[in-house]
Amino acid sequence: MARPVSFLSDFGIADEFVGVVHGVIARIAPGVRVLDVTHGIRRGDVQSGALALLRAVQYLPNGVVLAVVDPGVGTDRAAIAVETEWGFLVGPDNGLLAPAVAMVGGAGRAVRLEDPRFRLPGGGDTFAGRDVFAPAAAVLASGEASLDDLGPDFPVHHLTPLLLPLPSVEGEAVRGEVVWEDGFGNLQTNVSPEDLAAIGAAPGHHLVLDFGIARHGVPWAAAYGDVGEGELLAHVDSAGQIAVAVRGGSAAATLGIGVGRSVTIRSVPEAPR
Amino acid sequence: MARPVSFLSDFGIADEFVGVVHGVIARIAPGVRVLDVTHGIRRGDVQSGALALLRAVQYLPNGVVLAVVDPGVGTDRAAIAVETEWGFLVGPDNGLLAPAVAMVGGAGRAVRLEDPRFRLPGGGDTFAGRDVFAPAAAVLASGEASLDDLGPDFPVHHLTPLLLPLPSVEGEAVRGEVVWEDGFGNLQTNVSPEDLAAIGAAPGHHLVLDFGIARHGVPWAAAYGDVGEGELLAHVDSAGQIAVAVRGGSAAATLGIGVGRSVTIRSVPEAPR
Amino acid sequence: MARPVSFLSDFGIADEFVGVVHGVIARIAPGVRVLDVTHGIRRGDVQSGALALLRAVQYLPNGVVLAVVDPGVGTDRAAIAVETEWGFLVGPDNGLLAPAVAMVGGAGRAVRLEDPRFRLPGGGDTFAGRDVFAPAAAVLASGEASLDDLGPDFPVHHLTPLLLPLPSVEGEAVRGEVVWEDGFGNLQTNVSPEDLAAIGAAPGHHLVLDFGIARHGVPWAAAYGDVGEGELLAHVDSAGQIAVAVRGGSAAATLGIGVGRSVTIRSVPEAPR
Repeated sequence: MARPVSFLSDFGIADEFVGVVHGVIARIAPGVRVLDVTHGIRRGDVQSGALALLRAVQYLPNGVVLAVVDPGVGTDRAAIAVETEWGFLVGPDNGLLAPAVAMVGGAGRAVRLEDPRFRLPGGGDTFAGRDVFAPAAAVLASGEASLDDLGPDFPVHHLTPLLLPLPSVEGEAVRGEVVWEDGFGNLQTNVSPEDLAAIGAAPGHHLVLDFGIARHGVPWAAAYGDVGEGELLAHVDSAGQIAVAVRGGSAAATLGIGVGRSVTIRSVPEAPR
Repeated sequence: MARPVSFLSDFGIADEFVGVVHGVIARIAPGVRVLDVTHGIRRGDVQSGALALLRAVQYLPNGVVLAVVDPGVGTDRAAIAVETEWGFLVGPDNGLLAPAVAMVGGAGRAVRLEDPRFRLPGGGDTFAGRDVFAPAAAVLASGEASLDDLGPDFPVHHLTPLLLPLPSVEGEAVRGEVVWEDGFGNLQTNVSPEDLAAIGAAPGHHLVLDFGIARHGVPWAAAYGDVGEGELLAHVDSAGQIAVAVRGGSAAATLGIGVGRSVTIRSVPEAPR
Repeated sequence: MARPVSFLSDFGIADEFVGVVHGVIARIAPGVRVLDVTHGIRRGDVQSGALALLRAVQYLPNGVVLAVVDPGVGTDRAAIAVETEWGFLVGPDNGLLAPAVAMVGGAGRAVRLEDPRFRLPGGGDTFAGRDVFAPAAAVLASGEASLDDLGPDFPVHHLTPLLLPLPSVEGEAVRGEVVWEDGFGNLQTNVSPEDLAAIGAAPGHHLVLDFGIARHGVPWAAAYGDVGEGELLAHVDSAGQIAVAVRGGSAAATLGIGVGRSVTIRSVPEAPR
């Protein structure tokens, strides 16, 4: 019984890379459906790819994740497939898969994708998405091969972790970081509602966000409709994280702030003037 | 018998939003095919989304339209599903669906998408495409639920209309507006061939287009091949509207004109010098 | 038995053009799967479209290629379907299909897409992808029509060739041209490893690349890992051509070079200083 492949990469869509990967899967496993998660990850940005996959994975149909953000292609980084209770995750061993693997319950087993029966003879050593990862995803999805067929065991405690910036509670403040600017200009932080609860903040309170270059007082709102058009708010976003937004606008553009910026959050009794 | 979902949004493809919606549908209704109409609608531009859907709907396979251009997410705008002779249209009640609904014969019935059985418990109130609209589209497409299952009746005469700019015939001129600049730089107006017939113009005539900032004489051509490379023409475009184009080039770039610009069109006996 | 359609165009994805073509195929042939190769070909750039299709075709599932980069739409260029051992290729007769047709063994037969039974009555003469090419691809893929049903014979020796820049060996140098800049900034040339072998160069040698505006010494490397982060290399890329790359960066940005630039390549005994 064929299962779907969910495909994420930094290939962009200006070139035929994504289409060729779809083609390779279709040739090997004609009955397997391929769902594009996104191919707009910034080139070589493993952390952004890993976070996008982490946010998405619980909404993807059980089966196979094919994820390729692979700045180390052509070096000795391993190409791997990881088995989890959710299904298989296929990609480079550079931390890209690690948060999603943890989210779905951790790695049961993993293998290196080294068996030449399930690799294409490529013209070079630069397009592992086509030559290594796509064939592995295809045969795992179709059931044509088992994990063991694909290559030697890769001890799961050797899987490369992703070193993510972690928030910290310091007295009455939470120090965090902007980890995602989406296309609407929303700024997601790595701060959770639980982190804010630890400093006594709750929905409806006012927060002061200190970005170093500027400080902004915003309500912790439940929804965009709680503030006026064009006004700033903080809220729990669709991924469950504290995010900064502008109703009907772009927080990134309004604040001049993007991924990697540190933020210190405090709770205040009422709206700062 | 599963029917396809045709999906249009302003989500862009740099983030995983589109992929997550595909994932939600695939988890709920694995046999339902999802066709992407476009996700390149300008963020929050309901009129552009509505016009794109209007132009597309007659070419889409009967089934379900899932359309999300939703600047009012997190306010009290209704989330709806509309039944028509063509099939179902699912989206926010902000005018986005209205022109397409009218094009396919009008709304038979509508409901508010309020039944929690067919909503995902979201982390916030910001991603209704994932949490509200996708589940509804999935179960309508698969046949797992009927319209009545999804929520309370929404009187069709309460559906929010889209207030579109309308052309007007004023003496020997038609006043209209540029409503779409496509990726080739073609400028579609809201003027129809019938509007031009009302001022005595016909294919083969010459037209004077007055954009306020500049005036241009162009032939009303049947095809690009009727003018020279790099020359301006007016023609009936692939959606049946009067559009301005440059053979082998971009009318938008050539004229420095975009969506929202007024245009007054007159017919002249011969090509102006 | 339905076969898949692989679809390449210069339509971009900001508009609904691609979605409408998918819709037309889904209405005519609901069981046919459509695979998007890319829609990011530069508008009207037939050579870039032809080269992308050439690189992709061997990885696409046998069936139908639907390729539309058609600056001559609305002129008297022919609309054609070509039969090959691989399957059918459908598109404008402007050279777009020619390299891929040659790659898969040449054209067996071809027809002009003129039978009105398999064309949509369009509002104009500008969207042949929707009105002419998509219906033909759909019925060829589903098997509903044969090549002969679609229109009159088009002699295969009349097919428009693509005039590609060819490399030349001149003494101890190969003169070529940059023919593709991919989204990672890699610069593919029209020079093959065989061309370099003809001047005595081999992997591991050093090459001098003379772009006219600047000259660069680079190793002929087997993989990115053979050079340091940020360093230039030449290598055989994933399509089998000599390409210039920067490990972890963009050769196009580093060198300020793009498609169409001439390059003269020489082999030198050791790394130039």
